[in-house]
Amino acid sequence: MPIVVEIMSQTQLDLMVKYVDVLQVGARNMQNFNLLRSIGETRKSVLLKRGLSATVEELLMSAEYILAGGNKQVMLCERGIRTFETSTRNTTDINAIPVLKNLTHLPVILDPSHATGHSDYVTAIARAAIAAGADGLIIEVHPDPAHAASDGKQSLKPETFVELVKQVKAIADAMGRRIAPIKKPVVAGW
Amino acid sequence: MPIVVEIMSQTQLDLMVKYVDVLQVGARNMQNFNLLRSIGETRKSVLLKRGLSATVEELLMSAEYILAGGNKQVMLCERGIRTFETSTRNTTDINAIPVLKNLTHLPVILDPSHATGHSDYVTAIARAAIAAGADGLIIEVHPDPAHAASDGKQSLKPETFVELVKQVKAIADAMGRRIAPIKKPVVAGW
Amino acid sequence: MPIVVEIMSQTQLDLMVKYVDVLQVGARNMQNFNLLRSIGETRKSVLLKRGLSATVEELLMSAEYILAGGNKQVMLCERGIRTFETSTRNTTDINAIPVLKNLTHLPVILDPSHATGHSDYVTAIARAAIAAGADGLIIEVHPDPAHAASDGKQSLKPETFVELVKQVKAIADAMGRRIAPIKKPVVAGW
Amino acid sequence: MPIVVEIMSQTQLDLMVKYVDVLQVGARNMQNFNLLRSIGETRKSVLLKRGLSATVEELLMSAEYILAGGNKQVMLCERGIRTFETSTRNTTDINAIPVLKNLTHLPVILDPSHATGHSDYVTAIARAAIAAGADGLIIEVHPDPAHAASDGKQSLKPETFVELVKQVKAIADAMGRRIAPIKKPVVAGW
Repeated sequence: MPIVVEIMSQTQLDLMVKYVDVLQVGARNMQNFNLLRSIGETRKSVLLKRGLSATVEELLMSAEYILAGGNKQVMLCERGIRTFETSTRNTTDINAIPVLKNLTHLPVILDPSHATGHSDYVTAIARAAIAAGADGLIIEVHPDPAHAASDGKQSLKPETFVELVKQVKAIADAMGRRIAPIKKPVVAGW
Repeated sequence: MPIVVEIMSQTQLDLMVKYVDVLQVGARNMQNFNLLRSIGETRKSVLLKRGLSATVEELLMSAEYILAGGNKQVMLCERGIRTFETSTRNTTDINAIPVLKNLTHLPVILDPSHATGHSDYVTAIARAAIAAGADGLIIEVHPDPAHAASDGKQSLKPETFVELVKQVKAIADAMGRRIAPIKKPVVAGW
Repeated sequence: MPIVVEIMSQTQLDLMVKYVDVLQVGARNMQNFNLLRSIGETRKSVLLKRGLSATVEELLMSAEYILAGGNKQVMLCERGIRTFETSTRNTTDINAIPVLKNLTHLPVILDPSHATGHSDYVTAIARAAIAAGADGLIIEVHPDPAHAASDGKQSLKPETFVELVKQVKAIADAMGRRIAPIKKPVVAGW
Repeated sequence: MPIVVEIMSQTQLDLMVKYVDVLQVGARNMQNFNLLRSIGETRKSVLLKRGLSATVEELLMSAEYILAGGNKQVMLCERGIRTFETSTRNTTDINAIPVLKNLTHLPVILDPSHATGHSDYVTAIARAAIAAGADGLIIEVHPDPAHAASDGKQSLKPETFVELVKQVKAIADAMGRRIAPIKKPVVAGW
């Protein structure tokens, strides 16, 4: 069961690095270059989230800070950008998926929960991400979204998540790709 | 063979309405309310393209101008919005597909050619659109894109288009949907 | 007393051209190239408003359509652009003033009424425009803004307008510029 | 001679707090809530820069993190937001000045160097800021901008800065305001 934890400071990195499987760099820290350099010194997998107004080019430059330290296990994560549109919390930059696949060999992940901000739209955008060529998804799930401490509006109930996986699997099959079996749910901090 | 022509003025509408199958309202005319009202008086199918900085709500209000005249055959078309990102010509607002499907019964079409501006990314975004629930696509094809009078950079060669159709069909199958057989290519003005 | 009227079609242009002093091209028609060409054939002053998501470069290209017809009396008008910020109706692109003054000899006008959308902020932005080098202002005034048919929220009462003129004059003096005496109010259609 | 230093981490804060007059929170750290809380514990003046895609409301919420700790000496700084416009590095949100003056009693500062990114436009936007009601300016000056280690393109030569101060003073006079005498240049880290 992989453990993913968002790391926001050197202190947190020092505390967590032994215990976690994946270090997540949140959107607000995408250009925290000191933190990126420190993470580059580790040999843990990293999930690097795009800043909400960062360009694709800036995302790749941030990845370089980690790669330059010798840590090659970097996953790039599109999580929606800030635009004038207000019907969703953010605008999923779906174009970024083929653009990133064209510019880099790093795995590209999409976070439809943050990128839409509404549980009603998560499954459609999860399917779109895989169809566009994404290598993975991060989905927020909560047993009782209405009472979640944060991000409840965009969290799926477990039964909706099961349906999402089924639909995403059908798209992956159509793409000639396979989704990794999920044995147990992934636990993500924050 | 359906004929789609972009209509930019009352004069053009008067001239064309007898001969075309679909009246296209371009992004720049999405809020040309006089034109929308006139088109609402006809009984032709309409392809209403979203303005490059129009919100989803504004697109629906523009559709209302046509519907109010009694013309119910309106298709909504997402063709990319203007954002800070410069790696593609526009940003495909893929979220708009489930949002529009949620808010209206009108068919939703995606134009990955304008929404990306790069022929390399058209096929991936076409697949994503169908996976997100779009009802159709408009794709620019040109026998010799390098010498096209306009939009060459985003036009597919015929053989790439054939491959796109194949891939889109696989996604449509996975979605339990069917794509209409294409007997002959559609001729679109402008 | 100059009369400014917004022109939205060839028909309106034909009707109005004899009677008005200034032809206004609204933001939504900034890229209506047929209309721009027709206006270029006239010899009337033109107030060309920037589209709400048009770049400075696109504004200048639209001006070229008019200038190319031999009509050299073109005024450029910044009226706010669409961004993610929601505390004002639009975002005044104040940078556009020195940028346009640097790139062209055409007069640059600012419309703080549309650019802010709130009467409370109009005077401050009017002062800023003149301080940034703008050659003129368009201000919405209404004897009873609360009951205006449109744009009431951003319209000034006459007495506030008088105060605005006083403050703008002080800034103009500090800039070594002079404001033209206003004999009678300008009447603008739409 | 006030010393302003950008603080990016707890470690830097601990090191610097004794020696500096103003703690600067950079745009990338505007939502670094741990850092904001720690700064709220100090009694140093703070210059809080708006994130490049932060709303005015988010800027005020970040200020609250500092104020809540009892540190009331917070200055808010507009330094340009990210939009689709590319003729300048950022878009100065001049509207934010009267909006912030309306919503809060905190001093509002403008940074025309970052907000334009071009030394040619800094003076015009500095004048505009004061005319719009800003309480202060931060201006980048370098004896040899062409060879500056960073931000040379937006830095003024000392003689241009002298001219800027003269022009800004004229606007301040017109506004009935006074600018503080500059005895010696302010030294800012980073």
